[in-house]
Amino acid sequence: MERKNLNIGLFGFGCVGYGLYEVLHKTPSLNAQISKICVKNKGKQRPISADNFTFDKDDILLNEDINVVVELIDDADAAFEIVTAAIKSGKAVVSANKKMIAEHFEELLLLQQQYGVPLLYEAACCASIPIIRNLEEYYDNDLLESVEGIVNGSTNYILTKTFAENLSYANALQQAQEKGYAESNPILDTGGFDAKYKLQILLAHAFGIKTIPADIFNYGIDNIGELELKYAKEKGLKIKLVAQAFKTADNKVAAFVLPKFVSNTNKLYQVDDVFNGVITKTCFADTQFFVGKGAGAYPTASAVISDISALSYDYKYEYKKLQQQQGLELDNNVLLNVFLRHKKEEALVLTTYFDSIEESYLNNEQGYISGVISLKNLQKITNTYGANTSVILHDAVLNYELGENENAPAFTNTAAVY
Amino acid sequence: MERKNLNIGLFGFGCVGYGLYEVLHKTPSLNAQISKICVKNKGKQRPISADNFTFDKDDILLNEDINVVVELIDDADAAFEIVTAAIKSGKAVVSANKKMIAEHFEELLLLQQQYGVPLLYEAACCASIPIIRNLEEYYDNDLLESVEGIVNGSTNYILTKTFAENLSYANALQQAQEKGYAESNPILDTGGFDAKYKLQILLAHAFGIKTIPADIFNYGIDNIGELELKYAKEKGLKIKLVAQAFKTADNKVAAFVLPKFVSNTNKLYQVDDVFNGVITKTCFADTQFFVGKGAGAYPTASAVISDISALSYDYKYEYKKLQQQQGLELDNNVLLNVFLRHKKEEALVLTTYFDSIEESYLNNEQGYISGVISLKNLQKITNTYGANTSVILHDAVLNYELGENENAPAFTNTAAVY
Repeated sequence: MERKNLNIGLFGFGCVGYGLYEVLHKTPSLNAQISKICVKNKGKQRPISADNFTFDKDDILLNEDINVVVELIDDADAAFEIVTAAIKSGKAVVSANKKMIAEHFEELLLLQQQYGVPLLYEAACCASIPIIRNLEEYYDNDLLESVEGIVNGSTNYILTKTFAENLSYANALQQAQEKGYAESNPILDTGGFDAKYKLQILLAHAFGIKTIPADIFNYGIDNIGELELKYAKEKGLKIKLVAQAFKTADNKVAAFVLPKFVSNTNKLYQVDDVFNGVITKTCFADTQFFVGKGAGAYPTASAVISDISALSYDYKYEYKKLQQQQGLELDNNVLLNVFLRHKKEEALVLTTYFDSIEESYLNNEQGYISGVISLKNLQKITNTYGANTSVILHDAVLNYELGENENAPAFTNTAAVY
Repeated sequence: MERKNLNIGLFGFGCVGYGLYEVLHKTPSLNAQISKICVKNKGKQRPISADNFTFDKDDILLNEDINVVVELIDDADAAFEIVTAAIKSGKAVVSANKKMIAEHFEELLLLQQQYGVPLLYEAACCASIPIIRNLEEYYDNDLLESVEGIVNGSTNYILTKTFAENLSYANALQQAQEKGYAESNPILDTGGFDAKYKLQILLAHAFGIKTIPADIFNYGIDNIGELELKYAKEKGLKIKLVAQAFKTADNKVAAFVLPKFVSNTNKLYQVDDVFNGVITKTCFADTQFFVGKGAGAYPTASAVISDISALSYDYKYEYKKLQQQQGLELDNNVLLNVFLRHKKEEALVLTTYFDSIEESYLNNEQGYISGVISLKNLQKITNTYGANTSVILHDAVLNYELGENENAPAFTNTAAVY
């Protein structure tokens, strides 16, 4: 068992960077050390000696002794610049930046091939859950039907608080901000963008589908109001922000991010706080469920360490699903079973967007429509009626629940109505 | 991406063997085919053409075109003979036989090294859950604190029925037998032996500890009676058969199989029917939870296929934890918090075995003692008082629950009292 010696150049020293520094010092079995840390802010007080730091990225990128670059900065554009330069200089790269990876997926794929350099990013997707590695290595030959999950820790924390402590969405968000779980401008998380970036990464490793952010509909939790909270509580449901991708009847793949009502028979019901949970459904293994912390310095650093460890064995993603060329395409031509809250005066016009309506409700100010609508019409509504509406997906696909379809191959039932 | 062509010789054509045959035919991307199937029973009607079969094991073992042996027979002794011969003739081996692997772990390890031949056995441990691969590949450098889980599908099915349908244990067992989930002689499952074999395999890949079956205490579900079922139901608990291993305060590892009361805040509470669930707790990634089907032809075949697929890339277990020589030893010198049901007249003598007693109860026939006892004394009781007693572990370790210890390294709190 030969292990490469890894000389790491680290970009960024926020909480994950510092977590990584600590974790590395506690795992001496890994033959890896941080040679230099590049940071931006010259004035900031830092918990370790100043010799460790540089403010010039070339001190890492041009240093031939450094063979691994770990990129843990927030700014996706700066991150892309660093990662590109590192790959071009033949350095293996570990990154946790989902936005950067999702926005530049195809370029990063080509760069890896062109320069024969691995880029690993397990920490970018559900932090501590080894979902990319499992999709790459383990479901290689088990025909995948669907991947869905809670992939954003901040929003799950906010939604958990909203339900557990009967807070309004705004109050829960404020608490999350005070605890450092949500940014002062939290739109990337609460708008479902972060979840979408992760879904894009999952789509590539699960189904071999390359996407850009604009390809995928994301709808966050910002609009969640009292009416739908009350609706959920009365029915014993929780609301979770769920990213999902599934094969459609004509062997394409639908993918989107939407809040979803989940009942206590749905495995995601129990995934609370900053935990993430991912359910894969495959033809033969049936349902698999992975749960782990989706945020936090140590869980994220732990995923980074696993990637670093894998580099010491020359591991790289094979992108097997992309190579297999199954020709799966993204298909947004699906019908969804949703709850739509709206202003009273917009009730009539909104009904015209639905294919069928199961339930509707009105009071003096607002109302909701529950029924089947095409994803395209749903996008039109959210574009046109914006903050006057709130959309929650119903938890309608029963074949995802524990104990169903025992031993039966699951070719069927990824129905059009989701 | 070069893939080896795999020519498979299959031993056994029960439901998993036939499942594998079907699954292989539905995954043409895998360059693998079954050349010959060796079976025992000459008279049995089989669903595929007779040309596929042989009754002579040498038709596979001496066939130089066959480079992979897949062993899916019940008899552990015959399986060991086949696997040994296959390794010695340089054929890679995939096996699902936990008893064989647990009983001959060290010999099989040496054989793999001596002949440079991989032996993979993901299907032997929790069927569809990729737990061995994750322990091998992913938690390599994340200091592992504990592994615990429901690892036997048959007993979980029986216990689920017992609770969901208010059946007695005996009735639930009978139903499981009628459905084919339990053998006519179900003692390997219900006595906790199967769970122990799996725990032994987990111990090697999680902590680098080699064991023989006699090293580990296993206590099954055979003795579960009305009193403890009533106790559980009144308190909103379920009983699950749990295999667990955890680091003790003096950096050894305790491991045993015992039924356990689990509350609805324990992640294992939701793992019902033939599902298995494994919780790992690591220093940095914190809690991870894997759920999947632990029994059934397709889920098991799916794990076998993943191993076959891995062989096509020359994958082998590195046994990294064994190589790292952390020198972890098994330690059965632990205190447990248990519920012990007993005959009325044995109440007094049994109290003397306890370190401390929290609760005791007596009626005209029987009673229970709830308190702290050493594992050694517990073993004495089960040896001496056997079927007159029933033991259930209390669910006392709160730091395993979702949402606890957020972002904190989990060095602490694998307390002596479990």
